[in-house]
Amino acid sequence: MYQFSFYNPTRIEFGAEKEKRMGEFMAQFGVCKTLIVYGSERIKKSGLFDSVVAGLKEKGIEFVEMGGIKSNPVLSKVNEGIVLAKQFGADSILSIGGGSCLDSAKAIAAGTCYEGDVWDFFIGKKVEKALAIFDIMTLAATGSEMNSGGVVMNEQTLQKYSIKGTPLFPKVSVINPQLQSTVSRDYLVYSAADIIAHSIEGYFTASIQPEIINMQIEANIKTVIKTTEILLENPHDLDARGDFAWAATMALNGLTYVGTKGASYPNHMIEHAMSAVCDVPHGAGLSVVMPAWMKWWKKRNLAQFERFAREIFGLQGADAGIEALKAWFDKIGTPTTLAQLKIEGKVLEQVIDNATQNALDWQMSDIYTREAIAEVFALAKN
Amino acid sequence: MYQFSFYNPTRIEFGAEKEKRMGEFMAQFGVCKTLIVYGSERIKKSGLFDSVVAGLKEKGIEFVEMGGIKSNPVLSKVNEGIVLAKQFGADSILSIGGGSCLDSAKAIAAGTCYEGDVWDFFIGKKVEKALAIFDIMTLAATGSEMNSGGVVMNEQTLQKYSIKGTPLFPKVSVINPQLQSTVSRDYLVYSAADIIAHSIEGYFTASIQPEIINMQIEANIKTVIKTTEILLENPHDLDARGDFAWAATMALNGLTYVGTKGASYPNHMIEHAMSAVCDVPHGAGLSVVMPAWMKWWKKRNLAQFERFAREIFGLQGADAGIEALKAWFDKIGTPTTLAQLKIEGKVLEQVIDNATQNALDWQMSDIYTREAIAEVFALAKN
Repeated sequence: MYQFSFYNPTRIEFGAEKEKRMGEFMAQFGVCKTLIVYGSERIKKSGLFDSVVAGLKEKGIEFVEMGGIKSNPVLSKVNEGIVLAKQFGADSILSIGGGSCLDSAKAIAAGTCYEGDVWDFFIGKKVEKALAIFDIMTLAATGSEMNSGGVVMNEQTLQKYSIKGTPLFPKVSVINPQLQSTVSRDYLVYSAADIIAHSIEGYFTASIQPEIINMQIEANIKTVIKTTEILLENPHDLDARGDFAWAATMALNGLTYVGTKGASYPNHMIEHAMSAVCDVPHGAGLSVVMPAWMKWWKKRNLAQFERFAREIFGLQGADAGIEALKAWFDKIGTPTTLAQLKIEGKVLEQVIDNATQNALDWQMSDIYTREAIAEVFALAKN
Repeated sequence: MYQFSFYNPTRIEFGAEKEKRMGEFMAQFGVCKTLIVYGSERIKKSGLFDSVVAGLKEKGIEFVEMGGIKSNPVLSKVNEGIVLAKQFGADSILSIGGGSCLDSAKAIAAGTCYEGDVWDFFIGKKVEKALAIFDIMTLAATGSEMNSGGVVMNEQTLQKYSIKGTPLFPKVSVINPQLQSTVSRDYLVYSAADIIAHSIEGYFTASIQPEIINMQIEANIKTVIKTTEILLENPHDLDARGDFAWAATMALNGLTYVGTKGASYPNHMIEHAMSAVCDVPHGAGLSVVMPAWMKWWKKRNLAQFERFAREIFGLQGADAGIEALKAWFDKIGTPTTLAQLKIEGKVLEQVIDNATQNALDWQMSDIYTREAIAEVFALAKN
C-alpha cells in the first residue's frame, strides 16, 4: 500500500489583471516592506512593473528593487538580494518574472533569515525560516509558483543545485495567462519540454506509482501537447495559454508525485550539467536529454514505456513512444540533439564530469556512473 | 480567459497506520483538548478508537467523546456536540468516521466559536472562526477531508443544507485505505456513485470549463470505475482502495473546479431532498438521479455529453454514454430507479416539494421549477 504526506498552502490567483491586486494580497499577510526581484527591463517597458507598484503603494507597502536575474539564475545575484533585503529590513520578497526569478527569490527569502552562507541550504541544511514569498509569473514552466523548491547555480563551483523547505511555499502566486502570451516562440517550446520533463521523471523512475497518478500525469502531458500546438498557431489564445500555465503548475505542485516511491530526476540531474557548463536554456537541454535517456532507461520499466506510447500517442511499443516524443519535439522546434546545441568534444567531457558530480551529490551515483552518463549523451549526439 | 482563486491548506496524511500518529499531528497544532466525534460503536470494537486515543494520551491531549452520528447527519447532533465542546473547553474537533461524521464536526467547530444558532451558517452567515478540525476517514466518498464544506440536515425543517468557509478546512486528514477496506459492498458502490456525481456536476453544468479540467475529471472518473470493479472482486486490494480514496478526495478538493464558471450541483440539490424525506443513502439517491438528470439536461450541453460517452466509455453519442453509466450502476449494484428505493405516490410528491424548496434556497429555481424537477423524477421511475 502506498503512503504519502501532502501539504501545499500556496494560494493561486489566476486570471486577467490579478497582478494589479498583488498589493492587496500582500497586505492580507501583513506585508510592510518588500524586495521586488525581476529579470530584464522588459517588465518596466511593458508597464507591468508600474501596475504592480501602484497596487503596493495603495496599500502603503514600501519596496526596493533588484533587476537583472537571468535564466539559469546564479548565486551571486542571490547574495546581492540578501544584502539588499537585510539592509532594507524587508519582510517579504516579490518576484516578477519566470521560474528563475522566483527560485532566486526563494533563496533570498531563506538567506535573509539566516546568518550563515545561503549555499548551506543547497547542500543539505534545513530551511527553518524565510521571508514571505509572493510572485507574478511571466512564464509558465517550472511549477515553482506552487512548490517549496528552487534551483540556483553556484558559478564558482558550477553546481546547479536546489533549495527546498516548507517556508519556501509562496504565500500567493499570480498567474495571468495574458502576461505570458508575449513569451517568445523559443521559450514556449522550451517550457513545453520542461513541463513534460517534470511529468515523466516520476512516471518512468518510480518503483511504486499509483494508477490514479499515472492517469493524471497522462492527462497533463496531453494538455501540454495540445495547447503547445494551439499556441504555436495563435500565441494569444488565452484559454490554451491558461491550460498550458495550469499544466505547468500541476506538473510540479506535488500532486503528481503523491504515493510514488523511488522517483528520481535523472533528466534534470543530467541537464543541469548542460546549463551549468554551457548556459543552454533548461528546457532546450531537457528536450535533448529526454529522448536519449528514455532509450537508455526503457528496459528497466518496459511496461510503463509501452503504456506511455499507447496513452500519449496511441502507438504500440516502447520505441514508438520515444520516437514520437522526439518527433514532436522536432516538430515544435525544441532541440533534440547535442549537435544542435553545439555541445561536443572537450565541452561535452566537461558536461559529463559535471553531471557525474551531480549524481554523487544527488545520491544517484549507484546508477549514474560516468560511463552511464556518457552512454546517455552518446544517444543524444545526432 | 478563465479566472480562479485556489487555496487548500489541508495536510493529507495517507497510508498505513497514520491514524496512530494523529496525537502527534494534533500536537503540532498546539491542541490540548479535543472533542472526538464518531458514528457507530464499530470503531470501538475494531480497536480503532483505542489506537487513536493512545496516540492522543501520549501527547497529553485530553478529550471527551460523542458517538451516534448517522449518515445523513442531523442538526440536533451538531447542537449536542456544540454544547459538549463548549462545556469541555475544546480547542479542536477530531472526527473518526466518514463524511457525515466530518461534516458534523465542521458544523460543531464553527458553532462552538459562535454565540448564535449554528444553523445561521447554513443559510448564509459567513464562518469567521472555528475550532481546529482533524479527521480520520473510515469511508471514501464525500471529499470533505480536503475541502471547507459540510452538509447537515435540519430535521425540523427537512432542509439538508451546507456550511462552508475557509476556517473549515481540516488541519490534518488521515486517509488509511486499510481502515476503509471493511466498508460494506453497498456503501462501496454508493460511494462510487457519490464520487462520480462530484465529478460530473461541474463537468456538465459549467458554461466555462477549461480543457485541462475536463481531462483531469475524466481521469478521475475512469479511476473510480476501474477501482470499484477491482474492489468488488477483492475488497482488500489496498492499492485499488488507495486510488479509490484519493479519487474521492481529488473529486471535491477544488482542483476539478478551477477556472470553471457557472457550475451548479443539480444532482445534489435533487438528491438532498430524497435523503431528507426518505433517509436514503446519499450515494444510492445520486445513482438514481444522475442518469435521469443527464437525459433531461443533455440537450443543453450536447457536445460535452458526446465527449463523456467517448472518453469514459469509448462510445459514440450522448445517449450511449448515459445508458452506459446507468448500466454500470446496475452492474455494480447501486440503484438506478425510484422503484428500487420505493419512492412513489405521496412520498414522491413530498420529495419534489422539498427539492423545489432547495432550488429556491440554492438560487437554482430559474431552471429547476417544480415542473422541471418532476420531469427529472419521471425519467427516474423505472
